[in-house]
Amino acid sequence: MTKNIKKDKDRVVDLTLPENFLHMRQDILRFADMDRNGHLNNVKFFEFCQESRVALFRAVGAHDGESGRAWMIAALSITFLGQVQAPGIVETGTLVLKFGNTSLQLGQGMFNNGHCAATAEMTMVRVDQETGKPFPIEPVLRDRLKMLGGHG
Amino acid sequence: MTKNIKKDKDRVVDLTLPENFLHMRQDILRFADMDRNGHLNNVKFFEFCQESRVALFRAVGAHDGESGRAWMIAALSITFLGQVQAPGIVETGTLVLKFGNTSLQLGQGMFNNGHCAATAEMTMVRVDQETGKPFPIEPVLRDRLKMLGGHG
Amino acid sequence: MTKNIKKDKDRVVDLTLPENFLHMRQDILRFADMDRNGHLNNVKFFEFCQESRVALFRAVGAHDGESGRAWMIAALSITFLGQVQAPGIVETGTLVLKFGNTSLQLGQGMFNNGHCAATAEMTMVRVDQETGKPFPIEPVLRDRLKMLGGHG
Amino acid sequence: MTKNIKKDKDRVVDLTLPENFLHMRQDILRFADMDRNGHLNNVKFFEFCQESRVALFRAVGAHDGESGRAWMIAALSITFLGQVQAPGIVETGTLVLKFGNTSLQLGQGMFNNGHCAATAEMTMVRVDQETGKPFPIEPVLRDRLKMLGGHG
Repeated sequence: MTKNIKKDKDRVVDLTLPENFLHMRQDILRFADMDRNGHLNNVKFFEFCQESRVALFRAVGAHDGESGRAWMIAALSITFLGQVQAPGIVETGTLVLKFGNTSLQLGQGMFNNGHCAATAEMTMVRVDQETGKPFPIEPVLRDRLKMLGGHG
Repeated sequence: MTKNIKKDKDRVVDLTLPENFLHMRQDILRFADMDRNGHLNNVKFFEFCQESRVALFRAVGAHDGESGRAWMIAALSITFLGQVQAPGIVETGTLVLKFGNTSLQLGQGMFNNGHCAATAEMTMVRVDQETGKPFPIEPVLRDRLKMLGGHG
Repeated sequence: MTKNIKKDKDRVVDLTLPENFLHMRQDILRFADMDRNGHLNNVKFFEFCQESRVALFRAVGAHDGESGRAWMIAALSITFLGQVQAPGIVETGTLVLKFGNTSLQLGQGMFNNGHCAATAEMTMVRVDQETGKPFPIEPVLRDRLKMLGGHG
Repeated sequence: MTKNIKKDKDRVVDLTLPENFLHMRQDILRFADMDRNGHLNNVKFFEFCQESRVALFRAVGAHDGESGRAWMIAALSITFLGQVQAPGIVETGTLVLKFGNTSLQLGQGMFNNGHCAATAEMTMVRVDQETGKPFPIEPVLRDRLKMLGGHG
């Protein structure tokens, strides 16, 4: 299922290639990240997706709570492509695959020791914190996100 | 994208209904699970998916490392449907949506205060730990998983 | 060092006995709590200490942020007395060992499968969130904490 | 209590000074590390203590499970001295305060933005994994730990 998404004609960029990301977040692997088998715990893949996303939004001045609007995650798909070994570094890139009016679709690639360990796609909705309803993405955010590799 | 999956004709069961799950795992929400806004952190949704899956595999005698075979997660899609509030309980059901030869597709529903907070689907591959290659799911496991709500 | 504390004459109560706690918080162990050796990860002991403390303060109406005051942790000592095995339950009791004017000393015991897995002591300071300075513990909180097993 | 420890005449080194540590572990702060108030969660202080300790033992070739012996934590005391702000880096130094026959006492300092955020002391016991009993610290480990700042 998630695999079909990767073959989708809508996909504008190959998320398994680090050079396709202008925004890249680095995380240092911790002993606490590894599971009983010495591999990166599956749940931590999502933590790194979250870290890269938060860093991107912070970079464009749109982190949570700013100016009465927030981002809400609506859906996330991840495809696991390889193991991650500690100690070391994980780099997670994030870009915008597609802009909607009140939402956008992010694409992510996670890299460790020169290979892609996972790709992910997530749908984020811009929400007015007072009403709880979707809110059009501010043009200035849209522009900044495009500068950091946004498509569509 | 993930939403289309829900409408897919292959879907054999509605994951938003708790009564559709024979296997249900209960977790007590922790202060440490909540994010800065007082909601369940997104990453923790995956932790609860993991807990329910691990408990299911343990219930059928197929937890990690048993008998030289292990489960490897290949892909996961989650759709967020509502907030989760602490303190309280989260219940996460897991069933088998579809059996393959060496893999299976799990369906999950997460419930809090009487509503469905998220649904998830994940593809798990049975792997021989020595060779690292896919291994046919043992008939006895298949039977036990069907007894706990497996389809296909 | 921490062991000396246990022999200290100031100690008013034996923290290794569950019956000494009026306030007990229950946590369900998670796969994610366990380390590579199948034991409860050391860091998680502190998470359970935190959960029990937060639950106690919530029970007496003094959780963080309430009414412009907050609790700040100044110091924590823990003594590890035994392993914790999953799956199962951990129960962590918290009581007040000693009241100061703007601070108090908590005592904790952590229990699993009928034995005491750890004891802990921590010093919490009541702080005015605006000034960042210590603030006298409100008499009503003091009274409620005494009802839940406070000493001194 | 923990504060008395700091004034103890046995203390051979000031743990609030980064220059006193030969072994320093660096961690990148994550959004997931922060609590609802935007500060580093208290539990994460212990995670960083663990990371620095694990890295030290790995550096001297004595990480868990190696050669049938393991380290078991017996006690830990931490003193919180300041807030930690994200994004940024935390550096945690570890040294040996005192060697025993089968155990040792570690001293740690945690640093963020040029100030010391916490100090910690912990007692670690060398254990034979088969018998579960204390085991004399191997001379070669003792030597290497002294080279990385061990005292006593």
